[in-house]
Amino acid sequence: MNTNILPKFFAEFLGTMVLVLMGCGSAVIAGANGTTGVGLLGIAFAFGLSVVAMAYAIGHISGCHINPAITIGMVVAGRMKSSEAIPYIIAQILGAIAGAGILLLIASGKEGYSIAVNGLGQNGYDAASPGHYSLLAGFIAETIFTFIFLLVIFGATSTKNIHGGFAGLSIGLSLVLIHIVGIPVTGVSVNPARSIGPALFTGNIAISQLWLFIAAPVLGSVLSAVVWRYLLESN
Amino acid sequence: MNTNILPKFFAEFLGTMVLVLMGCGSAVIAGANGTTGVGLLGIAFAFGLSVVAMAYAIGHISGCHINPAITIGMVVAGRMKSSEAIPYIIAQILGAIAGAGILLLIASGKEGYSIAVNGLGQNGYDAASPGHYSLLAGFIAETIFTFIFLLVIFGATSTKNIHGGFAGLSIGLSLVLIHIVGIPVTGVSVNPARSIGPALFTGNIAISQLWLFIAAPVLGSVLSAVVWRYLLESN
Amino acid sequence: MNTNILPKFFAEFLGTMVLVLMGCGSAVIAGANGTTGVGLLGIAFAFGLSVVAMAYAIGHISGCHINPAITIGMVVAGRMKSSEAIPYIIAQILGAIAGAGILLLIASGKEGYSIAVNGLGQNGYDAASPGHYSLLAGFIAETIFTFIFLLVIFGATSTKNIHGGFAGLSIGLSLVLIHIVGIPVTGVSVNPARSIGPALFTGNIAISQLWLFIAAPVLGSVLSAVVWRYLLESN
Amino acid sequence: MNTNILPKFFAEFLGTMVLVLMGCGSAVIAGANGTTGVGLLGIAFAFGLSVVAMAYAIGHISGCHINPAITIGMVVAGRMKSSEAIPYIIAQILGAIAGAGILLLIASGKEGYSIAVNGLGQNGYDAASPGHYSLLAGFIAETIFTFIFLLVIFGATSTKNIHGGFAGLSIGLSLVLIHIVGIPVTGVSVNPARSIGPALFTGNIAISQLWLFIAAPVLGSVLSAVVWRYLLESN
Repeated sequence: MNTNILPKFFAEFLGTMVLVLMGCGSAVIAGANGTTGVGLLGIAFAFGLSVVAMAYAIGHISGCHINPAITIGMVVAGRMKSSEAIPYIIAQILGAIAGAGILLLIASGKEGYSIAVNGLGQNGYDAASPGHYSLLAGFIAETIFTFIFLLVIFGATSTKNIHGGFAGLSIGLSLVLIHIVGIPVTGVSVNPARSIGPALFTGNIAISQLWLFIAAPVLGSVLSAVVWRYLLESN
Repeated sequence: MNTNILPKFFAEFLGTMVLVLMGCGSAVIAGANGTTGVGLLGIAFAFGLSVVAMAYAIGHISGCHINPAITIGMVVAGRMKSSEAIPYIIAQILGAIAGAGILLLIASGKEGYSIAVNGLGQNGYDAASPGHYSLLAGFIAETIFTFIFLLVIFGATSTKNIHGGFAGLSIGLSLVLIHIVGIPVTGVSVNPARSIGPALFTGNIAISQLWLFIAAPVLGSVLSAVVWRYLLESN
Repeated sequence: MNTNILPKFFAEFLGTMVLVLMGCGSAVIAGANGTTGVGLLGIAFAFGLSVVAMAYAIGHISGCHINPAITIGMVVAGRMKSSEAIPYIIAQILGAIAGAGILLLIASGKEGYSIAVNGLGQNGYDAASPGHYSLLAGFIAETIFTFIFLLVIFGATSTKNIHGGFAGLSIGLSLVLIHIVGIPVTGVSVNPARSIGPALFTGNIAISQLWLFIAAPVLGSVLSAVVWRYLLESN
Repeated sequence: MNTNILPKFFAEFLGTMVLVLMGCGSAVIAGANGTTGVGLLGIAFAFGLSVVAMAYAIGHISGCHINPAITIGMVVAGRMKSSEAIPYIIAQILGAIAGAGILLLIASGKEGYSIAVNGLGQNGYDAASPGHYSLLAGFIAETIFTFIFLLVIFGATSTKNIHGGFAGLSIGLSLVLIHIVGIPVTGVSVNPARSIGPALFTGNIAISQLWLFIAAPVLGSVLSAVVWRYLLESN
């Protein structure tokens, strides 16, 4: 990895922009229009394939975190200096905002689109949960899903794993998996930046519920780093 | 592979937990809600991608069996000591129970969810078969599907196969395949732990039919080990 | 590759059995039950993932042709001795018959299943075409699709291609692709064995139309071998 | 890569033919027939898997551009001589026309098919946009999508990326991603040849709107080449 921070900053910015534009975009533009859209499975693939695409595009530049929970997990696991984490997280949040903004621009090109009605792929719980799941269910789900996501990231990128080339693919496919299961619960975040981007545009409930999509992913990530370090690769 | 059994035990526990939580979770949370769920294809991908994700996460730690039928097949094929198989199988069953328990916790966060009505992704035959397939059809299907699954595992992880990096991907995709075909027959087990986990919570029919989802996968696995050893890699 | 023909024979037999059982099985057992089945996309993945699974299972034993059109193309391209092609093709046809027979056994375990009404995933044109495509359209489609399929096989397994590990995956995914496009035309064969297996059980029209699913795939394969040898890898 | 231009020319011709025949073919033959077709997700996979298939088939011969926007981006990024770009682009356009022609031939084999009603998978905006998106939304979407597509191509094929074998897979899956999101906007081009092929047969609106599907992809490609060269791999 390149030691200059600027290419890494741009890579994390662009990668997170792509994740939010394409992931949330699949829901807003192509999602669940009865039998004519891509459906939940299509949305799940959009989020995961965004990670696959970006992993092989910018992985060799920045490591392709494009998610503050991953960056924090990497610091806790001792794989990254905390001083480097700050610009990563700033780039990720700015990228997510840019992605949500571009999505709003494109979505507004369809007559009848309204951000208040159609949303921007924001996350939510209780009344704002796609399947009306409770706050508690949302918190457990986001924590466990991020825990699982980070297990795959730690394992697939471990120096003890001789199949490192498959990291981007398996990590992306694990995000497809998490979305296949979790969209009805919260819309799936496991990534604070991915939740912040759309929430800044949709406002209201999404802003007031943002705390969960920051706290639960960070908690899941820290738990995963601890389990990984002390139980799984302990010797 | 690490010689200390503890990391392997935790890896098999967590891997099977993920398989049951995410595989069965896709059916319970996101499954077949008419045209708005992920459908049978989404459920098939959830089971298979759980294996892909875990293979690259913990494969270098425990080999990622996360299935007692695989562990037994490895012993029969002469690739694993039977003394090591016992802790593997215990970890797998405990992991499956944990996965089913977490799923029940999340699913209960949706108003109107009832384990008696909506189930927990348990397997079944006859009246409990999703497509009302008979006991005999279920037994044949589970035996043959496990036989095929193990053929892929033996071949993709053979020391004679120079593309070992693809093992996790091809094995996981073969589980997608088996679910695409078999969900209407039994819900697809090919893995005793995956059947035991949900059955302990749903009870009744699932418990009384559990024998098939232990016997048929083990039979299929043993047949596959014998065919592999004596007909396919005999020289 | 092993020089003893017996393991190759068993490998081709089992591989073609899996392709027919799982590919046709996805259509018969799980296919197009309105909104509750796996749909055309699921069937397409079943055929393609059967090849992915078998490629990494038996590819190092027999090369995983599991298709007489591929075996013939390999002979025409100068990559295989014609004497070895005969046992390959026999194994493939026997495997396809075994796969169709096992499928019939499982499918018959569902009350109301009738081979005359529900079929066994057989191919057809004109009145027997799923989308009522003509004989000419069927012949052109089968020829071109096999031509494309073989281009991928020749290229992905070429000694000049340094990414040989991806052959099984890309060849299997190209069969997913061909099924996504072609199921409405003929149900997609591109493989005489895959058509012969079900036809022997369903009889009637499927038998009388079998000539097309032998002639067109073989023609497409030979064209592909010639184009590959003289236009693409000519120097 | 072979220095003789003829094999490259044939490879680009055949690759683009396959992309148009199979991508547009999935929409025309198998697409959105209510609940019985492959749906938007199936069409998305068809376009992307065409690239995966061709990447491993002809990538070692021509680099598998099969898209004038990629060829132009490669020239701008300094990875290809402009003199070689001309025959590439000619081969791509001729291949796209051949692919659209073969598709018309097959589609016409279904009674009731009419090119005026059913189309040939052509791209469009405003009234010709599948989801009635405006010219501006279409232009922004095509530019950004091509920008993202080229980022993946530059990154996955960079000499600094040690996982070069995954280029074909990740590039193809990024095209799946772009189609999952963008089909409702313009049908997705990101490839002038892919738009020219069908438009020559359908005529009228598709011809008059062709400028956008040349200008936007080229703009996105050039922007991507500049960003890649000066911001991402600058040192």
